[in-house]
Amino acid sequence: MNVTLRGKTRHYRTVAFAASENAVQLIEQRLLPHEFKIVPTSDYRETALAIKNMVVRGAGAIGATAAYGLAQGARAFRGRDLAKFNAHVETVYQTLKNARPTAVDPVNAMNRLRDIMREGETVEEQQALVLAAAEEFANEDARHCAEIGQQGARLIREGMNVLTHCNAGWLAFVDHGSATAPLYAAQAQGKKFHVYCDETRPRSQGATLTAWELAQQKIAHHIIADNAAGHLMQRGEIDLVIVGSDRTLGRTGEVANKIGTYTKAVLAARHKIPFYVAIPHSTIDWNLKNGFEIPIEERHESEVLGAWGVIEENPAKKTRTAKKVASAAKPGKSQYVRVANPSSHARNPGFDVTPAELITGIITPSGIFRPRELWARRRELGFEA
Amino acid sequence: MNVTLRGKTRHYRTVAFAASENAVQLIEQRLLPHEFKIVPTSDYRETALAIKNMVVRGAGAIGATAAYGLAQGARAFRGRDLAKFNAHVETVYQTLKNARPTAVDPVNAMNRLRDIMREGETVEEQQALVLAAAEEFANEDARHCAEIGQQGARLIREGMNVLTHCNAGWLAFVDHGSATAPLYAAQAQGKKFHVYCDETRPRSQGATLTAWELAQQKIAHHIIADNAAGHLMQRGEIDLVIVGSDRTLGRTGEVANKIGTYTKAVLAARHKIPFYVAIPHSTIDWNLKNGFEIPIEERHESEVLGAWGVIEENPAKKTRTAKKVASAAKPGKSQYVRVANPSSHARNPGFDVTPAELITGIITPSGIFRPRELWARRRELGFEA
Repeated sequence: MNVTLRGKTRHYRTVAFAASENAVQLIEQRLLPHEFKIVPTSDYRETALAIKNMVVRGAGAIGATAAYGLAQGARAFRGRDLAKFNAHVETVYQTLKNARPTAVDPVNAMNRLRDIMREGETVEEQQALVLAAAEEFANEDARHCAEIGQQGARLIREGMNVLTHCNAGWLAFVDHGSATAPLYAAQAQGKKFHVYCDETRPRSQGATLTAWELAQQKIAHHIIADNAAGHLMQRGEIDLVIVGSDRTLGRTGEVANKIGTYTKAVLAARHKIPFYVAIPHSTIDWNLKNGFEIPIEERHESEVLGAWGVIEENPAKKTRTAKKVASAAKPGKSQYVRVANPSSHARNPGFDVTPAELITGIITPSGIFRPRELWARRRELGFEA
Repeated sequence: MNVTLRGKTRHYRTVAFAASENAVQLIEQRLLPHEFKIVPTSDYRETALAIKNMVVRGAGAIGATAAYGLAQGARAFRGRDLAKFNAHVETVYQTLKNARPTAVDPVNAMNRLRDIMREGETVEEQQALVLAAAEEFANEDARHCAEIGQQGARLIREGMNVLTHCNAGWLAFVDHGSATAPLYAAQAQGKKFHVYCDETRPRSQGATLTAWELAQQKIAHHIIADNAAGHLMQRGEIDLVIVGSDRTLGRTGEVANKIGTYTKAVLAARHKIPFYVAIPHSTIDWNLKNGFEIPIEERHESEVLGAWGVIEENPAKKTRTAKKVASAAKPGKSQYVRVANPSSHARNPGFDVTPAELITGIITPSGIFRPRELWARRRELGFEA
């Protein structure tokens, strides 16, 4: 999507490939929202490290990064010996796979690439095939998200207030995003609307990443504390909720997503506000039979006990001059501050599960479905028996 | 309640008075939870400043501070001229009143004191009466909270998990608190239980003040992100919710409290978890006929866009040695960090309103009532026609 730097607006993808330099180009997401920077990795090991260290995050984005990383590694091989080449590719594959061992997208992406490249008969042919397949994988991710946008845009009407939670934005995919795609598509159709971004504690992806995306895209928005959505719904200030999903159960329509999603669904149901989940097909889990089987990661307590941000002077005491100084200053480095009582501990479940009954619809590239309709539609949604 | 400093446990009130030095003694709440310090004010103007600058906050606590401040000011008068004394007391009254112009508790407290002191015939008599009345006001606040504790403790059973939101603790009153009083009383009865403290963004009073109180009182607790309560309720990990209230409508049973309270009530109702509100009689508004008439303060957006805390090194990278160094270090000064996207803005409603239908009961010093029962019970709850 668009990013404006020093007054110039340009289209970027989260992940791209520069074939002439054999380099993967990534948005350094750990610097956002305070600084925008593209970092190139010149070697598949660097690419794996970027996945591991969260330079890039989000299912679609790390899938594409691993795909490009495999192509990058394969293309760096010098020689014509196919056996040696295959051994090298296997090393590249394992290195990228181990960068985020629990993620399924990099493995799915690389398996597909490997199948395609094996159709080549020489090293050179295989190198060409793997690059083309990586490009196609990234293009497909972007295309699927754009299709989610087309499907979802019809839910957004002029003047609506839309609530979103966490970041299921283009930064988590190659482009467009899932929950944000309908917003970008509706904007392209000329519709005017306003978005409330849940802050999304403890990691604040709504206040940092989603708000940054919307600001770059010039979509009107306000950040709110996670506590405020109920009040705004009660006062009639929210018309529609769209969130993403980490895993959607194809058999039950249950949706696992960032902690707090379930709360928003309960609130939306009470206020009869439509609640939609936007997903690419790859997020559907066709195996699990019950949302309680989804493992809920308990993350480090420091996320809840503090916050990451850039040190500013007391904003309540800001003078006009001080504001000018602050806005002219270079973006500072993000720091961790301990907010909570020093002797207290925290619990930090990272995700929650929303039952089908609270979900109005699932927005997919191939249509909007009721959550319990997914199983009946499984063939068109990519289920393979 | 108890505070342990350098291994020694002592009982403190939030506000106290040292008659020999004519000094009001306040817990400096702006330093909590990182540092515990009692600050004495030696003059009523200093006391007013302490109210204004939030050294002390919370309805009961600022009521008692204003009461002591009035006594302090009156007692500083030298001479026997009653007319001059009355003029001086009027100045003291206005100074303390203007310290927090929208608060009703300081005015109510000082009006009561002024009525009582006027029964004295000399300056000396009036000075003695106002001090006695201030002490009685503070004692009564503490006694009412203790009674809330006795009433509410019967709701708490061995092994329960209790959720609380924000800080309606002893730091907001003279002692015991409102929502926390049942916890302290149940502990005194020998019951074992566990508390989840909602972080309570954007000002984090749960993570800072309530967690500090519970830690000092040695009550088992964990802080959670406001987003996590729904998930914990869904998994059966919360048995009871107790919150405080800034204003409770006597005619309708509606409860205005810190933003996010309404969300917790909606979640509790869905999971059939009892939801109680603990209040002293002084919090009941007998006039308003509709919760929508309660003005909802829109606070400064910087609260949502950032956080206050003490700078720490990256907690994910903490080594054992670094942890030792950090814990041996003096408590740092709290800093503001900007978390959110720099070009985004926030909305920040400070309170919300929970309807009677979501509230299981209102815990008062004189009993636990259904919210719609308050009006019928208005005589015993302090309503004056």
